[in-house]
Amino acid sequence: MSEVDAQQKRPPRVIIIGGGFAGISAAQALRGVGARILLLDKENHHCFQPLLYQVATAALAAPDVAWPIRYVMRGREDVTVLMLAAEGVDTVQKVVRTRVGEIAYDFLVVATGAAHSYFGHENWAKIAPGLKSINDATLIRSKLLLAFEQAEASVDREERERLLTFVIVGGGPTGVELAGALSELARGALPPEFHRADPGKARILLLEAGPRILSSFPERLSKYARRALESMGVEVRTGAAVEEVYETRVVAGGEDIAAGAILWAAGVRASPAADWLGAPADRAGRIAVDPELTVPGFPDVYVVGDLALVKGPDGVSVPALAASAKQMGWYAGRAIRRRMLGQKPRKPFRYRDRGSLATIGRKSAIVKIGRLELTGFVGWLFWSVAHVYFLVNLQSRLFVAISWIVAYFTYHRGARLITR
Amino acid sequence: MSEVDAQQKRPPRVIIIGGGFAGISAAQALRGVGARILLLDKENHHCFQPLLYQVATAALAAPDVAWPIRYVMRGREDVTVLMLAAEGVDTVQKVVRTRVGEIAYDFLVVATGAAHSYFGHENWAKIAPGLKSINDATLIRSKLLLAFEQAEASVDREERERLLTFVIVGGGPTGVELAGALSELARGALPPEFHRADPGKARILLLEAGPRILSSFPERLSKYARRALESMGVEVRTGAAVEEVYETRVVAGGEDIAAGAILWAAGVRASPAADWLGAPADRAGRIAVDPELTVPGFPDVYVVGDLALVKGPDGVSVPALAASAKQMGWYAGRAIRRRMLGQKPRKPFRYRDRGSLATIGRKSAIVKIGRLELTGFVGWLFWSVAHVYFLVNLQSRLFVAISWIVAYFTYHRGARLITR
Repeated sequence: MSEVDAQQKRPPRVIIIGGGFAGISAAQALRGVGARILLLDKENHHCFQPLLYQVATAALAAPDVAWPIRYVMRGREDVTVLMLAAEGVDTVQKVVRTRVGEIAYDFLVVATGAAHSYFGHENWAKIAPGLKSINDATLIRSKLLLAFEQAEASVDREERERLLTFVIVGGGPTGVELAGALSELARGALPPEFHRADPGKARILLLEAGPRILSSFPERLSKYARRALESMGVEVRTGAAVEEVYETRVVAGGEDIAAGAILWAAGVRASPAADWLGAPADRAGRIAVDPELTVPGFPDVYVVGDLALVKGPDGVSVPALAASAKQMGWYAGRAIRRRMLGQKPRKPFRYRDRGSLATIGRKSAIVKIGRLELTGFVGWLFWSVAHVYFLVNLQSRLFVAISWIVAYFTYHRGARLITR
Repeated sequence: MSEVDAQQKRPPRVIIIGGGFAGISAAQALRGVGARILLLDKENHHCFQPLLYQVATAALAAPDVAWPIRYVMRGREDVTVLMLAAEGVDTVQKVVRTRVGEIAYDFLVVATGAAHSYFGHENWAKIAPGLKSINDATLIRSKLLLAFEQAEASVDREERERLLTFVIVGGGPTGVELAGALSELARGALPPEFHRADPGKARILLLEAGPRILSSFPERLSKYARRALESMGVEVRTGAAVEEVYETRVVAGGEDIAAGAILWAAGVRASPAADWLGAPADRAGRIAVDPELTVPGFPDVYVVGDLALVKGPDGVSVPALAASAKQMGWYAGRAIRRRMLGQKPRKPFRYRDRGSLATIGRKSAIVKIGRLELTGFVGWLFWSVAHVYFLVNLQSRLFVAISWIVAYFTYHRGARLITR
């Protein structure tokens, strides 16, 4: 692909693989430049991952936090959205392989994201699901609710205690948010409706292998989060690496814990795109990209989002967040646009830290934006407004806001369905 | 069980099997009488079946039309809800068999409802799902949306035409409502977002074996409905009995129709409770009950809802509707209450026809209440208000009303998720 195509007749073909934050942003950055864009994803929907834990804990319905990718791209005549999994890339022929044949590109944006890593114990995946997709979230929701239901139906005291023990592996934002939301479900929403088991007495354990939870946050906030979780009855165990996961128990830090549900919020592994591209990857499968987010040796192939390993000027890797994915996708889209228009290349990608947030419960969150640090109710309010704002349409904003307001005053959880 | 137990110490034990309209009503009719009530269901949720077709066509989210049974029964100290399938009944020992053991009852209310009947072709069930549960509805939603997605991704014209052909078997209210809602999805919501396939050109066929659709309604309304469907582009075929169902086609009325999705809204078969009870059943598995809704020879066993075959004084069977299920459940609950209180038995059950409704599209419904017949927009408005009113809580009412108002003005469908 030469930079002069824009002056010729044929519009350049851009293929974007992945309709997450990075892929969507890349498409948005290409608006109106005259490219022929093909956006591929194996799912039909874009999912607002930061709120998935609320689907998993029955606070929100799945459609509140996920929308068809073609709906997000509505009004874009230049973007064709296909629910079609990429099965490989030929970077020499410049085609993407799919079930319906090979599709040629001039520019490629790979934004296939990450899945969970079980550190070589892939058999744990079936027992301890992670939280990356809508399907994961509804599976976890069913697992959690089923444990409470089975505890209520059980006639054996020991069995009941096991069923009411929940283990969450991994003390990052997802693990912390799951633990907090699960505690509110167990101690707030459920107790008035159970007669035999007492969901309020559920044990919720948050296991973290490292020395503290939320290690990406300043130590003060991480300590605050721990205290807040503990005040909600969550047992936080640091230095507790998981040694083995069985169907109904976890061995961690030398302790054998019988559990009703085990959730995984620990390791992350990039999608297998590095293999497709023949690009060198780090241990987590991430592709070390050039400062322009392209694959070394393939200047027409951009890699963005959780799949990209990008070092900042300070040598620190850009964190895998919704915000960084959006920035990378946008950068790649703008870079392609400049090349189409024959403008000089963009400066290398630079991640702008807009802050990080994690919520612990309905009255508590931690927020770090530059030097500003918020905790408690103020943090929670900030977190809520920010998240409602980022949803893709008015109806979702309205439904999420109403659900939260109702939950705030009544502990009601509106989406407590066990499905198959 | 003697009628004098109420004067003794031990509270009578009532087991209700099934948390549908009939089971819930039975529990409500027993409020405050001092019985020890156990409500069993294999699911954790009560489902508002009349709106399931809206979940199946992506208009509403599943949690909008289903609520945990224990939530519906909240505040009832006398009702224990267990998510537990009944596996049999011993009417002599008076126990219900479950996975956690046998549970004794003094009065039993069996309200296990009905499933689909494929008239001896049970292998069709996997291909052409029916619409009885939340799981059915999300499965159908995924099937329908996937057909549109595959049509957009297909490079073969014939294949695309097949994928955009939808066959609905059965011209009762469910079939008519599905056909109308699917037509609006295809012709209203989707076209602006597709570039290659044209969802607006989708063929929607409604097949009815009998001479007219909606045969339980007066002929005038049934004709109106047919015209309304046809004006929405639905091909209505009467006298078209299905002969064979294959993975990608249906043979009906001598015609071989290649289809992208086949939905079943034809026969209904009662749950296998007749076998448990050793009671004689009709061809559809329904139990012919006494005029007091009890099983002949077992005055402590009530059978209510779709499972019961009840003849009115005119010899006509009571129709299988939400309204009749509620009335039967309520009747059984009140009858048990009277016996507990030592009052004289109730008069035989009598179904009160409160009217029937079926909606065809966003501007059209048919309503028959006594001599009143409504059609068109007035009918639709009546239908909408009635259905919002019957939902179990304010949040659901609000979400459903907002979804409908938004859909009315924009054709937007807020729940277009393909899940597994």
